[in-house]
Amino acid sequence: MDNQNINEKLVSLEGWNYNAEKGMLYKEFVFKGYLKTIGFVNAIAWIANRENHHPDLEVSFNKCLVKLTTHDDGNQLSDKDFNLAKLIQEL
Amino acid sequence: MDNQNINEKLVSLEGWNYNAEKGMLYKEFVFKGYLKTIGFVNAIAWIANRENHHPDLEVSFNKCLVKLTTHDDGNQLSDKDFNLAKLIQEL
Amino acid sequence: MDNQNINEKLVSLEGWNYNAEKGMLYKEFVFKGYLKTIGFVNAIAWIANRENHHPDLEVSFNKCLVKLTTHDDGNQLSDKDFNLAKLIQEL
Amino acid sequence: MDNQNINEKLVSLEGWNYNAEKGMLYKEFVFKGYLKTIGFVNAIAWIANRENHHPDLEVSFNKCLVKLTTHDDGNQLSDKDFNLAKLIQEL
Repeated sequence: MDNQNINEKLVSLEGWNYNAEKGMLYKEFVFKGYLKTIGFVNAIAWIANRENHHPDLEVSFNKCLVKLTTHDDGNQLSDKDFNLAKLIQEL
Repeated sequence: MDNQNINEKLVSLEGWNYNAEKGMLYKEFVFKGYLKTIGFVNAIAWIANRENHHPDLEVSFNKCLVKLTTHDDGNQLSDKDFNLAKLIQEL
Repeated sequence: MDNQNINEKLVSLEGWNYNAEKGMLYKEFVFKGYLKTIGFVNAIAWIANRENHHPDLEVSFNKCLVKLTTHDDGNQLSDKDFNLAKLIQEL
Repeated sequence: MDNQNINEKLVSLEGWNYNAEKGMLYKEFVFKGYLKTIGFVNAIAWIANRENHHPDLEVSFNKCLVKLTTHDDGNQLSDKDFNLAKLIQEL
């Protein structure tokens, strides 16, 4: 996926960022309290399991950093990543 | 919500049933194993928390019975129930 | 497991009840809010998966009814049930 | 907590490591599959919520890196961290 393609897709994903070096799409979500953060992790887990594409998560008390890349493809972005970002965005 | 209205809405909800006596919409979901069942419970919990409408769940090893009614309304069905059923159906 | 044995074991399990007809050990847990109830379900799920013995759960907004029996044994109580009740009690 | 104290406590925590620079206790747990990884996250969440001490987690498909420090104390280790590590170890 070339940079122009990536940038076009990024436009519709509010708050998501692209790290070119790591071939990674990421966004930090902030919550009011720990149990909401954990609830979000579980909501992502359901989608990830269903879509068979699994983000890396960094979870703290009130934040969850979601990191997407396609490992099979040498850590580049693929449609799988943008699809998952869109589904997470809709949560 | 009268019976005709309920029956019309039920048509598009595959596998859901209506118990008139209890004013309850319900469906049993079956899963391959316990962890998938629990994953489903968490997916429902996310939606229920977001929509501020909470189904009753009967959870066993590989099944989850989802029961919807509107308690505030004297255990009758409301649009909230049909909305939640639709969202659960799309999981 | 005979009734005397059951009653002796019940003494140390605060709030648990025995239903002789169903061969079932049960307790209702009450929580402050939905996310705590769901957190409890997940804590039970971890233990149930580890111990390979799975309670039936009735989950509502702020309550979780835990029901234990040994299905393989024709719905009688076994040591597995008392062991799981003790572990849940310690949560 | 001085280094001698930390090293003595570390002995009984199999697989846990200490990063002096970050004042951090950490361990990577590996699981057979995504749903078990997520189950572990939920088990930790129950304990963290109960103990009111919350580890940072890095969650991927089959791994969970647990990182403990005491933020209030300027990112040093405290008894809270060792207590939580012990409880997580017993999961």
